Amino acid sequence: MITTTATKTQKVYFFGKGRAEGSGALRDLLGGKGAGLAEMTNSGVAVPAGFTITTEMCDQFYKNDRRFPAGLEDEVNSNVAKLEEAMGMRLGDENNPLLVSVRSGARESMPGMMDTILNLGINDRVVAALIKKTGNPRFAWDSYRRFIQMFSDVAMDVDKHLFERALTEAKYAIAGRAGKDKKDVKDTDLTAEELEKLVGEYKAIYKKARGEDFPQEPKAQLWAAIKAVFNSWNNERAIIYRQKYNIKGLLGTAVNVQAMVFGNMGDSSATGVCFSRNPASGENKFYGEFLLNAQGEDVVAGIRTPQKISLEASREWARQNDISEADRRAKYPSLEELMPETYKQLLSYKIMLEKHYRAMQDMEFTIQENKLYMLQTRNGKRTGFAAVRCACEMLKEGLIDEPTAVSRVQPDQLNELLRPVFDRADRDAAAQAGRVLARGLNAGPGAACGRVYFSAPEAIEAADKNKEKVVLVRIETTPEDIKGMLVAEGILTALGGATSHAAVVARQLGTVCVAGCGALNIDYANKLMTVGGRTIRQGDYISVDGFTGEVFAGQIKTRPSEILQVLREKSLAPEKSALYRQYKTIMDAAAKLKKLGVRANADQPDQAADALIFGAEGIGLCRTEHMFFGGDRIKAVREMILSENAEGRQKALAKLLPMQVEDFTGLFRAMSGLPVTIRLLDPPLHEFLPSKELEIEELANEMGATVEQLNFKIKQLHEFNPMLGHRGCRLGITYPEIFNMQVEAIIKAAAALKKSGQDVIPEIMIPLVGHIQELKILKDNAIAVIQRALKETGVELTYKIGTMIEVPRAAMTADEIAVEAEFFSFGTNDLTQMACGFSRDDSGKFLPEYVAKGIYDRDPFQTLDQDGVGRMMRYAIEHGRKVRPDLKIGICGEHGGDPDTVQFCHKIGLNYVSCSPFRVPLAILAAAHAALKK
Amino acid sequence: MITTTATKTQKVYFFGKGRAEGSGALRDLLGGKGAGLAEMTNSGVAVPAGFTITTEMCDQFYKNDRRFPAGLEDEVNSNVAKLEEAMGMRLGDENNPLLVSVRSGARESMPGMMDTILNLGINDRVVAALIKKTGNPRFAWDSYRRFIQMFSDVAMDVDKHLFERALTEAKYAIAGRAGKDKKDVKDTDLTAEELEKLVGEYKAIYKKARGEDFPQEPKAQLWAAIKAVFNSWNNERAIIYRQKYNIKGLLGTAVNVQAMVFGNMGDSSATGVCFSRNPASGENKFYGEFLLNAQGEDVVAGIRTPQKISLEASREWARQNDISEADRRAKYPSLEELMPETYKQLLSYKIMLEKHYRAMQDMEFTIQENKLYMLQTRNGKRTGFAAVRCACEMLKEGLIDEPTAVSRVQPDQLNELLRPVFDRADRDAAAQAGRVLARGLNAGPGAACGRVYFSAPEAIEAADKNKEKVVLVRIETTPEDIKGMLVAEGILTALGGATSHAAVVARQLGTVCVAGCGALNIDYANKLMTVGGRTIRQGDYISVDGFTGEVFAGQIKTRPSEILQVLREKSLAPEKSALYRQYKTIMDAAAKLKKLGVRANADQPDQAADALIFGAEGIGLCRTEHMFFGGDRIKAVREMILSENAEGRQKALAKLLPMQVEDFTGLFRAMSGLPVTIRLLDPPLHEFLPSKELEIEELANEMGATVEQLNFKIKQLHEFNPMLGHRGCRLGITYPEIFNMQVEAIIKAAAALKKSGQDVIPEIMIPLVGHIQELKILKDNAIAVIQRALKETGVELTYKIGTMIEVPRAAMTADEIAVEAEFFSFGTNDLTQMACGFSRDDSGKFLPEYVAKGIYDRDPFQTLDQDGVGRMMRYAIEHGRKVRPDLKIGICGEHGGDPDTVQFCHKIGLNYVSCSPFRVPLAILAAAHAALKK
Repeated sequence: MITTTATKTQKVYFFGKGRAEGSGALRDLLGGKGAGLAEMTNSGVAVPAGFTITTEMCDQFYKNDRRFPAGLEDEVNSNVAKLEEAMGMRLGDENNPLLVSVRSGARESMPGMMDTILNLGINDRVVAALIKKTGNPRFAWDSYRRFIQMFSDVAMDVDKHLFERALTEAKYAIAGRAGKDKKDVKDTDLTAEELEKLVGEYKAIYKKARGEDFPQEPKAQLWAAIKAVFNSWNNERAIIYRQKYNIKGLLGTAVNVQAMVFGNMGDSSATGVCFSRNPASGENKFYGEFLLNAQGEDVVAGIRTPQKISLEASREWARQNDISEADRRAKYPSLEELMPETYKQLLSYKIMLEKHYRAMQDMEFTIQENKLYMLQTRNGKRTGFAAVRCACEMLKEGLIDEPTAVSRVQPDQLNELLRPVFDRADRDAAAQAGRVLARGLNAGPGAACGRVYFSAPEAIEAADKNKEKVVLVRIETTPEDIKGMLVAEGILTALGGATSHAAVVARQLGTVCVAGCGALNIDYANKLMTVGGRTIRQGDYISVDGFTGEVFAGQIKTRPSEILQVLREKSLAPEKSALYRQYKTIMDAAAKLKKLGVRANADQPDQAADALIFGAEGIGLCRTEHMFFGGDRIKAVREMILSENAEGRQKALAKLLPMQVEDFTGLFRAMSGLPVTIRLLDPPLHEFLPSKELEIEELANEMGATVEQLNFKIKQLHEFNPMLGHRGCRLGITYPEIFNMQVEAIIKAAAALKKSGQDVIPEIMIPLVGHIQELKILKDNAIAVIQRALKETGVELTYKIGTMIEVPRAAMTADEIAVEAEFFSFGTNDLTQMACGFSRDDSGKFLPEYVAKGIYDRDPFQTLDQDGVGRMMRYAIEHGRKVRPDLKIGICGEHGGDPDTVQFCHKIGLNYVSCSPFRVPLAILAAAHAALKK
Repeated sequence: MITTTATKTQKVYFFGKGRAEGSGALRDLLGGKGAGLAEMTNSGVAVPAGFTITTEMCDQFYKNDRRFPAGLEDEVNSNVAKLEEAMGMRLGDENNPLLVSVRSGARESMPGMMDTILNLGINDRVVAALIKKTGNPRFAWDSYRRFIQMFSDVAMDVDKHLFERALTEAKYAIAGRAGKDKKDVKDTDLTAEELEKLVGEYKAIYKKARGEDFPQEPKAQLWAAIKAVFNSWNNERAIIYRQKYNIKGLLGTAVNVQAMVFGNMGDSSATGVCFSRNPASGENKFYGEFLLNAQGEDVVAGIRTPQKISLEASREWARQNDISEADRRAKYPSLEELMPETYKQLLSYKIMLEKHYRAMQDMEFTIQENKLYMLQTRNGKRTGFAAVRCACEMLKEGLIDEPTAVSRVQPDQLNELLRPVFDRADRDAAAQAGRVLARGLNAGPGAACGRVYFSAPEAIEAADKNKEKVVLVRIETTPEDIKGMLVAEGILTALGGATSHAAVVARQLGTVCVAGCGALNIDYANKLMTVGGRTIRQGDYISVDGFTGEVFAGQIKTRPSEILQVLREKSLAPEKSALYRQYKTIMDAAAKLKKLGVRANADQPDQAADALIFGAEGIGLCRTEHMFFGGDRIKAVREMILSENAEGRQKALAKLLPMQVEDFTGLFRAMSGLPVTIRLLDPPLHEFLPSKELEIEELANEMGATVEQLNFKIKQLHEFNPMLGHRGCRLGITYPEIFNMQVEAIIKAAAALKKSGQDVIPEIMIPLVGHIQELKILKDNAIAVIQRALKETGVELTYKIGTMIEVPRAAMTADEIAVEAEFFSFGTNDLTQMACGFSRDDSGKFLPEYVAKGIYDRDPFQTLDQDGVGRMMRYAIEHGRKVRPDLKIGICGEHGGDPDTVQFCHKIGLNYVSCSPFRVPLAILAAAHAALKK
């Protein structure tokens, strides 16, 4: 092959006629686009011919004070000749003119940063030739017009606004004539004659600006364009882009000069897009659309109805759209019928390219006068269902190996597979019927349909007594709403972001949730909400799409995830579900590949069971405060809080002790021998007290206290910044009896199970530690309680005592804290709040704007801020392990289920991530990806 | 001298009879106490003789498995013999028994950590000898009783509670007989007979516990005591103490065995304490008290009235207490009169020791049967006034050099010199009359007296219209109270700590403040407060002592600081104020010595003037939000906040612009050419809106809005954690027009002054930056505004744009931020809040307990948490300077005026600290101390 013998001093690489001098391996030299074009050409696909000027030439161009390197002109000229020969057309030819595109392309993709010129080669004579050839004067003049503007702006530095003004004026003239509103006139309303006139004006603008006629000579156009592309390598936005994405060590950009082909040269021409497999279902069937005598943009524009490529798909489509076979054949025939030979060739290209790239391909093609050209091929975007199916089937076909199959499914795509979904047709019908009420944040994926209830107690009653399906709608949720959230099919809130209480709990429960839907006007008093001009009353049906964030009026049919039917409901046999088998194939392979441990955040035995189903290797975070709301617990908790002294607190805690023992027993039993990390009480005490007048009154009655006393206590507990207040280990320091009770319950539960023969590995986690002395005091307290409890029960038990790292000071003094801590668990929610100084509850006021302005690439509460918070984590890991080399380090909190964060955790050497049960498969897959990346 | 020839193998060092084998230079070997005793002996002072067993012996004791090193016994025995000879007494002698103390003493002082045994050598026979010698059986039996308890506990591991129980029972028996309440019986109520009986019981307790008689042999007692002291080197509390204070590399403790002397052996014996200069005023006059026939503790106990040492002081004292000269001579003669020879000797010791230590000495002495012994000398504690006067006079006397003089004044002591003070006599009278109402936190030093007002407007009216002196009393203060605080003599609040709004502003204004005085029950509605059973109504006088935190009912006379009379009021000529001249001597010397820059936090020209008076080298922090409350500004600010769009905001900001120009002009003019760092708007907007119903109503009327609209806006702006909310640069990002207006005002003010010939160095500081992109966007905005403004004014100007480092993320990414920031200023208040995760406003609920439990040594809002926050600062400095080696770094915020923090700032290489004007001298002095430490 020429490729291998090409020397480095070769300045230009040709591709065309089934052969390319370059290849995919020469990315450094030819840039991404040039290498791709070469690769496609070499794989036997017909690609419009062209050539690539190497990145080395760009480098020398700059070293040479922005002059072309010696010898380049000769090589370009000889390649132009080769190109003309390959295409059977000539630049500037008055019968069969060759037009070319001139495009940049560096090793790393820098979309939109550098310049491109299309239709180069057009001039006053060529435009006439084009008209003659295409019979489409509008197309020809429009191409000319566009070329003048693009070339003048990019290569000749003529202000493009001058051209835009002329275009606008032409459109205004039409509006005047037609009596239309100015805003309603489109570019496409301009006729061929009007465009021809505009070209004349454009040329005048050029002449005025540059003091010379618009260049008619194609070669002169070409050299100016090449120079413009080289220059664009160092334009300001390209430099900033490279800084921002830390792109370094590149020589420069290559320049790709490629023949233009046209699908609009009459009925022997066409243009289309196709996928090698179905991008929605993944089914291995050729899938695509085309238009006869059209340009690529027409397919996308939706003015004409695109036709199907294969006969089978065409018939299927007609059936769905109630079109008779006769009509179909007459108006919407398939490419297979219209151009059987070309179809066959396209089919063979599809097979060839999929084999070559070993992935489902998304291809663009143009047929110019019966000749098929492939313009582009790339790995196709696909749904989660398609991704899993393609990966499994290609694995079975022997096209790819297991690691590749795993790498072909994006972790987030698993979400789709696990959640109930709306019946597609029913959903589309609802949308078309105008039943979309609003759109919020897609905080908990899945589809839910039920009757609206605006309070937890009413939701519970409706669900429990009346067996209704319920959607709980709240302005925002609080821990008191937990029971209502548990019974709800879906949760909808007006306030709060992706890490609001509603969103966090919904993810943990696997409940559908749309949060922060600001358009809702909720009126608790009258039990209704108004939204988009409609009023929804308590008991009305709504449907909530947690995939998209959309909220619909009325009912939409839902279907449960097949995977859950197999794993949890056991209502479906594994062999009956292809989806389950595909899912299992990918997940088994991922579990084998990953190095990082994956645990789940779970507070209840049923959550723990879910975690196990999904492959969790332990519990990384049990939030004990959730347990404090169940049953009579909240009463005892409030009694404890309202006590004036340690004795009173101890009395109330004595009531809680057996309940907590029961809680932990359930959890340990469910996890049968896997490690369970239990975090001692974290939130500030005021979260357990009611805030509403009526509830305060009730509680006062219950407690035998006056409303004034209760209000006084509530006021006493009020904090200006509760996030930074009296909570976590600070409670343990000031009220040691609370933590002591919890530790006693943990150990008593573990000891009893151990006695009964079950293995238990409790890990006690102390929250919000900022100073080693806090941990030391609380660890000493805990050990005293543990030793007493073990002595009482007569059981030997292995346990660990560790800490959350969520206060920046703890991260900075990790070397001190590791002396006492047997494990670290990064609480990245709070760590992000404190490190970045954002209150999660308030950041909605500016964070969206921050993300929009690119200050943060993504919401740092969803994907870990690796540059800032991540740097702090690295510091803590390094200093912690310096003192305790075998320190076990994990992460709990919402980030633990975010795929990018999981990959980061792998990279910085964590031992495990912990996330909500439904995100465990995502984390496993992300961990496998991370392991594959090295 | 023996000292120099002593080899390292010498195990015991003798001191006595005017000569010591050791010296002050042998601290490593003899420990601090042993070296001090040797030094004092060698300087010619009579010290009870004794010997020191070296720290090497302790080391060998441990290496030798807790056995005494070979040869030690011989050396100790020969030193005991020397000691007996020197004192003319013998251990266990039945006529003239020698008693000794056995004390620990390592190189570094570890107060209370190791063991001490007194009165060793006493036994059944010796106690009889003591009775005979002293004629005081009670003293003898009490000494024996104490020795048994101390020796048994420390050396023999007998539970000391056993002895305490016996003592308690003896006291209860007395109570029963005397019909007294148990609690009212004191140790001193026990008679000689009762003590003798108790000694019997003590011996029985010992025998029961140890199975043998209490050791009667003095040598056996001695060896047990030496062993106990060695053992105490590694007791738990000593180990923890060394860990805590990072004391490393010590061999062990030395053991000091020293003859006991007694001042209670009749009327030829006495005991006393004295200072080489007056510890209150610093005057160079011998000052001290003594008691005849008494023990050291009697002088302190206050049962008998101590007599003065010098005749002059004695006469002065009698005059003050209305005692006739005859009475005085009869009942309270001076030592000078009673024992003229001994007095002369004491006088000569005083001179000798002060010369030797070159510092004011605090000495303890005992006269045993006409022989004077110095027991201890140390540098004396003294008031700020005394510290400055002593340092200056010793400098003039040639006793010390300038650096030493500077090092002899503690920065905090300057506070006393600068603040108004209460007339001492008047204050004492008020205290004795029971007028102390309560005690709060001494948040702003000084003395203030005035009429109580409970609201800022009323305070202003009283001060402005009625020219009353006013004390503003509030539950807590907010920025809206600023004007009231400005007119007040003193500020008193019921809530809030040392960094509450009241405390911070008071320090900045130099106003007297007592904060967090929880005993106040303030009733705004009825304009009164109740405290300690009294009711204080609006208009009543109170007096507030910001030095001590005490609050008095009624008036107490105040005096302004002389230094301010000279510097600010110009009402006193410098040559008329000795205090001012002393202050200036010290401050001039400190300013020469220091390396660290010192700036002030100031928002107003008069504050800037104060800053200059005190030696500030620039303004390190101008908080522009304070300016927003003045005059009509708040109206425009509120209009801006209530605007619905950028246009509305801009209209309101246009009104603010000329006001801000005026603000900055005043500040720049006052600082005439010194750098002025201006922080752009920092607090969240809701701080500028009223919170009370009535005020909201008023504002609504003013703004032409409804109360509902206003309440809605206030609710919209409400934040759960305002500390972490929408403030600082986040406002600048979302409302760029606010920052732009401020930048324009800064530059216009600076440019106008520059035009008029004055040099101006504006430094624009962007607050709350956490991410480089924030700074970049805001810096670009600012530069655009600046260039426009400079073009308009046609002036060239040097300016800097930098950032606060107060968000942990900023500290962690300092290397990125330093690319854009021309300076850093650590905002350690917020950095502490976020790094430690404490809300300053809420931490009162647990931080006091944290400090009490030693989790933090000190309140991290008062003294910088060097281990945590400080480590983050070091990280930021290191990484910031890596990118920009000449990065100017400072600290603003409350810590900048804390002496320990200033020293830390010097150590970590900051360029300057900035603090409130009244703390500038403290910071200068602290910076000088830091420079001297190297």
